[in-house]
Amino acid sequence: MKKDNISVVILAGGRGERFWPKSRIKNPKQILPLLSKRTLLEDSIKRLGDLVDKDNLYVLCNKELKVALSRLKVLNKAKIIAEPVSRNTAGAIALISMLIGKKDPDSIVVVLPCDQYIDNNKKFIETLKIGIKAASLTDSIVTVGLKPSYPATGYGYINIAGALKGYKGFLFKVKNFKEKPDIKTAQKYVKSKNFLWNGGIFIFRSSKMSSLFKRYAPQIYKHIKQIASSKNFNKSLSLIYPKIKNISIDYCIMEKVRDILCVRGEFNWSDIGSWESIGRVFEKDKKGNVVTGNFTGLSVRDSIIFTEKDHFVGAIGISDFIIVQTKDATLICPKDKAQDVRKLVALLKKSKKTKKFL
Amino acid sequence: MKKDNISVVILAGGRGERFWPKSRIKNPKQILPLLSKRTLLEDSIKRLGDLVDKDNLYVLCNKELKVALSRLKVLNKAKIIAEPVSRNTAGAIALISMLIGKKDPDSIVVVLPCDQYIDNNKKFIETLKIGIKAASLTDSIVTVGLKPSYPATGYGYINIAGALKGYKGFLFKVKNFKEKPDIKTAQKYVKSKNFLWNGGIFIFRSSKMSSLFKRYAPQIYKHIKQIASSKNFNKSLSLIYPKIKNISIDYCIMEKVRDILCVRGEFNWSDIGSWESIGRVFEKDKKGNVVTGNFTGLSVRDSIIFTEKDHFVGAIGISDFIIVQTKDATLICPKDKAQDVRKLVALLKKSKKTKKFL
Repeated sequence: MKKDNISVVILAGGRGERFWPKSRIKNPKQILPLLSKRTLLEDSIKRLGDLVDKDNLYVLCNKELKVALSRLKVLNKAKIIAEPVSRNTAGAIALISMLIGKKDPDSIVVVLPCDQYIDNNKKFIETLKIGIKAASLTDSIVTVGLKPSYPATGYGYINIAGALKGYKGFLFKVKNFKEKPDIKTAQKYVKSKNFLWNGGIFIFRSSKMSSLFKRYAPQIYKHIKQIASSKNFNKSLSLIYPKIKNISIDYCIMEKVRDILCVRGEFNWSDIGSWESIGRVFEKDKKGNVVTGNFTGLSVRDSIIFTEKDHFVGAIGISDFIIVQTKDATLICPKDKAQDVRKLVALLKKSKKTKKFL
Repeated sequence: MKKDNISVVILAGGRGERFWPKSRIKNPKQILPLLSKRTLLEDSIKRLGDLVDKDNLYVLCNKELKVALSRLKVLNKAKIIAEPVSRNTAGAIALISMLIGKKDPDSIVVVLPCDQYIDNNKKFIETLKIGIKAASLTDSIVTVGLKPSYPATGYGYINIAGALKGYKGFLFKVKNFKEKPDIKTAQKYVKSKNFLWNGGIFIFRSSKMSSLFKRYAPQIYKHIKQIASSKNFNKSLSLIYPKIKNISIDYCIMEKVRDILCVRGEFNWSDIGSWESIGRVFEKDKKGNVVTGNFTGLSVRDSIIFTEKDHFVGAIGISDFIIVQTKDATLICPKDKAQDVRKLVALLKKSKKTKKFL
């Protein structure tokens, strides 16, 4: 597989509201330095090394992020496409497959979420390369399966069957996909070696994906084709894209296709979806706390604490908490309420007095 | 009783460390506007109305507070005495009794803690007047007993016996004092009408108190006499006062004297000792929260939240919490750990990095 036949698409949609108060409307999570000194998006791009030519790199995002991305040097040559509205992964992948396919229908497309933690870039690239080889040779859709490190109920799982020959034992047939399980089922999955996390990483030939949309989601295919063949791309994108069904690629395509393959990643992985996930990937101190900034705790355990420079936080007698402080706003919530930060943000939107902190 | 025979002493010792991060070494709780727009000390003085001539008003405090007090106009004529070290209530009351007694051994002294909440000033003054009358006519020590509003385990109790004639039914003999009880005992006390909170308010003739010290605490008496009769008051105070035993007036005198009286206060009272006490006296919103500043809560109940102007705090799924934010420091702790704020402050003292937030 030649390098110039490979395209990488980073899905950077979503506002990351669950990372409030660090994430703001004009400063969404993708451009926050959540995992390193670089932003999440920079981390995602740097992780690719020289897998792809920079002019075959695409970033799909919303309008606000596109404005913010102009600040990032690392995106010099990348193509940034701003969706006028979010239409979930089906819309995004249909659009990008058709756009790349117009240039080169044989090119292999790697779709990556922006918000992921990966502990070993070398193994990550090796995994992608096996997937690219498989997608190229078999013309199948290839997913990347991640070894579960705990019984997550927030992830989908991939049920894999026998390994295929010739891929170092890392490539498997996909038996089926399992949606977010309950805790007991998740515990079973973790014990079994046949269930891997579905991290939303897909590898496919652009023409293959388009043909699958044509077959399984003809409405989406029709709309996207209109957009891709229009002379005024931006205008037709803003007019037609909102008409597309808001559905995930998993429901729309993956669960309907039989011959999907799965390459197993030999690295630790986590979705970076909420403050709670930060607690899973950062190094903890003796008391199980992840601390950045000025903090002193008395009987504080298993908590995540981010404080602003020059400000000090003192806490007493709490466990499994999230405390995030920025210049003008502070969040305090138990870890098991990390998903509800989105609800809090929705509440803040309702009042003029609180809106300014979004 | 003539007004110029009455002296009032406000005990404003203690640093109020449990009110960190609002209280600081250079800004102790007595000069914080904790209950109103005025400072605690100003509230205490204003509450007296015209009970006492301002030049018969005394404030006992520590060195740092004396410096800070120069800012308060309300203290114009009051005598401010800075203890070189804190020697608890025994030392303070022995000193002040002897100093006032030197001027006028017959004068009646009213000792009040600075850190108290009282919901009805008129009834408070009426109570003091009954106490002053009783102390003057009977030459007994008079305590003020407060009707318990909940089974507090943090207060001492006064066990009262039959009412004395001629004081509107508000004056009682003291049977004995009960130290901080366990919760079951406290519940019994609250049900009984014979137990009142000991709020540390005492009324007595100065010569009477000095004679009690002479009898029950001759060492303290000797030291205080040396200080009071010295030509260089400040010098001898700083040399001799530290030698005095660190003991409360309750242990030192009250529990040994038989003919103590108690006047029952017909108002709601609370010690203002920790953030938790603020929660008891402030008006609560529908969810039981006491909120000052910019705050939005999602499933937040029975909590105390103080935020700094221009800063916003959002919290999710917590009950009975204390969140106090100042310009440079924030405290987060469950209400039942409010007493441990002192331990946190002790921890902050240990490091250069955290000391600056005290």
